[in-house]
Amino acid sequence: MRKVIPQWLDTRRHSLAHIMAQAVLEKRPDAKLGFGPATEDGFYYDFLFATPLTSDELPAIEARMRQIVREDEVFQRGDLAVDEAVAQLEAMGQEFKVEYCRELAAAGNATIRLYRSGDFVDMCEGPHVERTSVIPDDSFALDSIAGAYWRGDESRPMLTRIYGLAFETREELEAFKARRELAKQRDHRKLGKELDIFHISDQVGQGLALWLPNGAVLIDELEKLAKEMEFRDGYVPVRTPHISKSRLYLTSGHLPYYKESMYPPMQLEGEDDYYLKPMNCPHHHIIYASRPRSYRDLPLRLTEYGAVYRYEQSGELAGLLRVRGMWMNDAHLYCTPDQVKAEFIKVLELHRFYYSLFRITDFWVRLSLGDPTSKKFAGSMDSWETTEDMARKALIDAGFPFEEVRGEAAFYGPKVDHQMSNVVGREETASTTQLDLVMPERFGLTFIGPDGLEHRPIIIHRAPLGTHERFVAFLLEHLGGVFPTWLSPVQVRVLPVSEGQQAYGQRVVDALRDTLLRATLDASSESLNKRIRAAEVHKIPNMLVVGKREEADGTVTWRRKGHRLQVTLPLDRYVAALQETIARRLMDNFEDVEVPGFAAG
Amino acid sequence: MRKVIPQWLDTRRHSLAHIMAQAVLEKRPDAKLGFGPATEDGFYYDFLFATPLTSDELPAIEARMRQIVREDEVFQRGDLAVDEAVAQLEAMGQEFKVEYCRELAAAGNATIRLYRSGDFVDMCEGPHVERTSVIPDDSFALDSIAGAYWRGDESRPMLTRIYGLAFETREELEAFKARRELAKQRDHRKLGKELDIFHISDQVGQGLALWLPNGAVLIDELEKLAKEMEFRDGYVPVRTPHISKSRLYLTSGHLPYYKESMYPPMQLEGEDDYYLKPMNCPHHHIIYASRPRSYRDLPLRLTEYGAVYRYEQSGELAGLLRVRGMWMNDAHLYCTPDQVKAEFIKVLELHRFYYSLFRITDFWVRLSLGDPTSKKFAGSMDSWETTEDMARKALIDAGFPFEEVRGEAAFYGPKVDHQMSNVVGREETASTTQLDLVMPERFGLTFIGPDGLEHRPIIIHRAPLGTHERFVAFLLEHLGGVFPTWLSPVQVRVLPVSEGQQAYGQRVVDALRDTLLRATLDASSESLNKRIRAAEVHKIPNMLVVGKREEADGTVTWRRKGHRLQVTLPLDRYVAALQETIARRLMDNFEDVEVPGFAAG
Repeated sequence: MRKVIPQWLDTRRHSLAHIMAQAVLEKRPDAKLGFGPATEDGFYYDFLFATPLTSDELPAIEARMRQIVREDEVFQRGDLAVDEAVAQLEAMGQEFKVEYCRELAAAGNATIRLYRSGDFVDMCEGPHVERTSVIPDDSFALDSIAGAYWRGDESRPMLTRIYGLAFETREELEAFKARRELAKQRDHRKLGKELDIFHISDQVGQGLALWLPNGAVLIDELEKLAKEMEFRDGYVPVRTPHISKSRLYLTSGHLPYYKESMYPPMQLEGEDDYYLKPMNCPHHHIIYASRPRSYRDLPLRLTEYGAVYRYEQSGELAGLLRVRGMWMNDAHLYCTPDQVKAEFIKVLELHRFYYSLFRITDFWVRLSLGDPTSKKFAGSMDSWETTEDMARKALIDAGFPFEEVRGEAAFYGPKVDHQMSNVVGREETASTTQLDLVMPERFGLTFIGPDGLEHRPIIIHRAPLGTHERFVAFLLEHLGGVFPTWLSPVQVRVLPVSEGQQAYGQRVVDALRDTLLRATLDASSESLNKRIRAAEVHKIPNMLVVGKREEADGTVTWRRKGHRLQVTLPLDRYVAALQETIARRLMDNFEDVEVPGFAAG
Repeated sequence: MRKVIPQWLDTRRHSLAHIMAQAVLEKRPDAKLGFGPATEDGFYYDFLFATPLTSDELPAIEARMRQIVREDEVFQRGDLAVDEAVAQLEAMGQEFKVEYCRELAAAGNATIRLYRSGDFVDMCEGPHVERTSVIPDDSFALDSIAGAYWRGDESRPMLTRIYGLAFETREELEAFKARRELAKQRDHRKLGKELDIFHISDQVGQGLALWLPNGAVLIDELEKLAKEMEFRDGYVPVRTPHISKSRLYLTSGHLPYYKESMYPPMQLEGEDDYYLKPMNCPHHHIIYASRPRSYRDLPLRLTEYGAVYRYEQSGELAGLLRVRGMWMNDAHLYCTPDQVKAEFIKVLELHRFYYSLFRITDFWVRLSLGDPTSKKFAGSMDSWETTEDMARKALIDAGFPFEEVRGEAAFYGPKVDHQMSNVVGREETASTTQLDLVMPERFGLTFIGPDGLEHRPIIIHRAPLGTHERFVAFLLEHLGGVFPTWLSPVQVRVLPVSEGQQAYGQRVVDALRDTLLRATLDASSESLNKRIRAAEVHKIPNMLVVGKREEADGTVTWRRKGHRLQVTLPLDRYVAALQETIARRLMDNFEDVEVPGFAAG
């Protein structure tokens, strides 16, 4: 669930910033102080040093901080008249503080608050802990040094920022460090490179991922999964162009509501402008409208694994998490009003199925509502109230706990955002489901009801796997790059014990590939142990070792990544076992999953 | 094979145009003559009439033509001085002929040729048949009437064009008419609408097909087939964005060589322009170049079922045959020079496999070469000679007869064009395979050879299923919209005999859909015969009739489209039989194909 930092922890962290500044000033009395706030996982303070500080000096500062904490100093507050405060800060030689103090005065502050702890005095609004001893002396640590401009302004001096970590207890501090180390190891950009998943090229453009063969296998398998689930739920596929004339987006309202997120137009003489599509919806509405629809045709569930393009600011681009081109597992469900709730619940349940399949347990739901006071939203108050109420009721009936947030909806309707935490506990929107009464109106969509009259359908927009880019980034980090067999770019590596079994090894590979299993042979001259280690490093889930005995018996010896047990069985039985594992999409990368055919013989 | 019209047939057709004009003038002596040439399947003549001619008058004209033919008139040639010719044509009141005669004189012609047959005199270069009786009087027929501007100029008078058909014999004439009728019935635009395959919308743009659910199933199944075949041949998948910065196309040379076929740029301040991709190749080259390659990594076969966009002139757009957005079964094979021939032959054999699978027998091969005198082609003479020779040798070794055409290559290398005839005998380029030494140079692509030195790979570009748009158009016409089970949008329709079996019918549908078969229920209140006819009209390959006996026995009674035989068998045996048919991709829409499980019990 969503993490909220308690006020008392924030206070502690801020007090630790003071304690750090006190320790620093004892060693560097001429240091000029910038700002020193609490952060999400600790605190920092900015300093201007006459001679640079190196990270070698941090342990001594940290040690002194522990001492101060143990000395149980008291935080004392005092309010001074502005002139008095300026005089005192000038006397201390703290020019940045003086500057800020004068600014506050100019803004109308009559008094300035100072805090004293031990010998250290700082201009500060507080609050602080009463005494330093409430902070366990092992619950914090100095972390790193970085450069930061005074007040973030490139024309002002560059200060030295010292970061610290602080939590309630030592255990929590250690847990945070471990999680951070794990996140570093599992960073999707790092794993994406190591495992040949994707490549971003300056010749093609920022935020535009090229999916390398291993990454393309992931998208292919996820697409296959999505198509299968959607077939079972009665969806029908469509494919639509990646561009459209501007008039489509004038109809939908993407022009102007969404213009700033769109690539600029392609301009032709004597013809409409063309735009890259930022969403698949308008094209799907055109398909809906391409012929008359009856209530008997509804719900019509159009699905497309489509690529869309959004012009995000370059500063916001980050690996696969924030991109400009993305593949979406998108669908639009055109329903009669009577059908909406049941369909919406089925969509929510499909989410639940995916989370359970991928063993994503840390997720929750946010209902993002419109804001009647904002011009960001299209359509009438009434339609908004209707759809918001429908979404709320569906969530309650489906048994999803949720929180409501006003003003975060799509421009055409309320959203149910599925939020999840990644390995470092960072919250992300994995996917959104929307209810839409606005587009049916804008596109003039209708169906003939049992009464023989025209009615408006209601549209559900959904993309439970979100964008492929974001979902693969999440999966890479969630699984540390260790994919189950059904998703793995290489599913089986065949390892002949020695040169004599290379031909048999190749026959095994051919037999596996003939049933469309992604198998490769490692017939290099390295030792068997080295080749096993290489397969482990490449996170290949299954290894088949074939020696003289295996060749004579027509068997294979099966090792699984991360397992000590190995099993020898006839090749055809192995193929059958693996095909079953794949067909059932078993998460055989998790230890507790029982895998067909893999048991001590 | 390619159709060539023999000169003698062309001459006959042209003579028939004169004979028609003679017959028309006898009935309408004041008609003014335009031009009257031979065409690909007959002839036409343009006339200006004082009062409009209707198609009701054609039978009488045709009858008179047969008479003239039988009267055995002689075609006589005479060359006149220009003045004399003008005087004679003026006397005849043929103002268009006078205009053209004066034009020829202005261009330097001293004499003008006239032809006389019977009472009819026409200014004409010939040649003509000697006597009209060499033309069988049942080998031609008048066809239709259309309007046509004099000399195609909208500011000149609108003439009446009368079209005729003419072949060697009556049998050939009838065969042509039958083929044309078939083509009309099978026109992919007509079938595409009737079978809900695709939709083109003016809001989205001309030449940009939206694939409706039934069409999306076709593309999905073709993609699955292609991916399977390519997996077996060692290809690896990639996915690349649909746009790129301009610098990519400056590197590849698409700017400027291919600029006129590209959509205009998306222009951003302070950033490169972005372009929609007209081809997948440059993106694939970036993937090749994304890390060092060794000879051990080659051949590297990158495949992508990618959408590309080309700005064709709007006048050239026609249904799915000429479009602006297209899905391509594209791949690029990066080879060492030693590997090229074998890989090229394997690609040609893949073509052969597809043609045989789809029962396409009327195809042939054209080797399109560069032209050293033209600026349309990039790269050095040497590389062109090398690649042209490689392609030629591969074609010979693979046993493909071919013809060579100079100047029709891609700008970066020679092409092997796979041509085929459609149901009306129209020749089409189904796909092309290219050999490329130019792009490796332009992109600086290398691999490290066994000698430890850098070498240039050679690239094979191939897309054996061509564009999805063109291939589906071809298949629709080739198969008349009757798809085999594995391709059919609806594979099985379940028909309960009466209301009492609706629940059992639904259970049968559920069981089929559970194994991912595309099955639907027709439980409407229409009679069984009517529902069977409806399934036939929708070209659904399999019908399962379920009555009381079937429900009691857990069986289904299986009818196949276009077959009189029906077979009753247990549901599970039916599912197994159909799954086998699909797995083997049997063309069970052809009569001679033996279908598992379908035999008199």
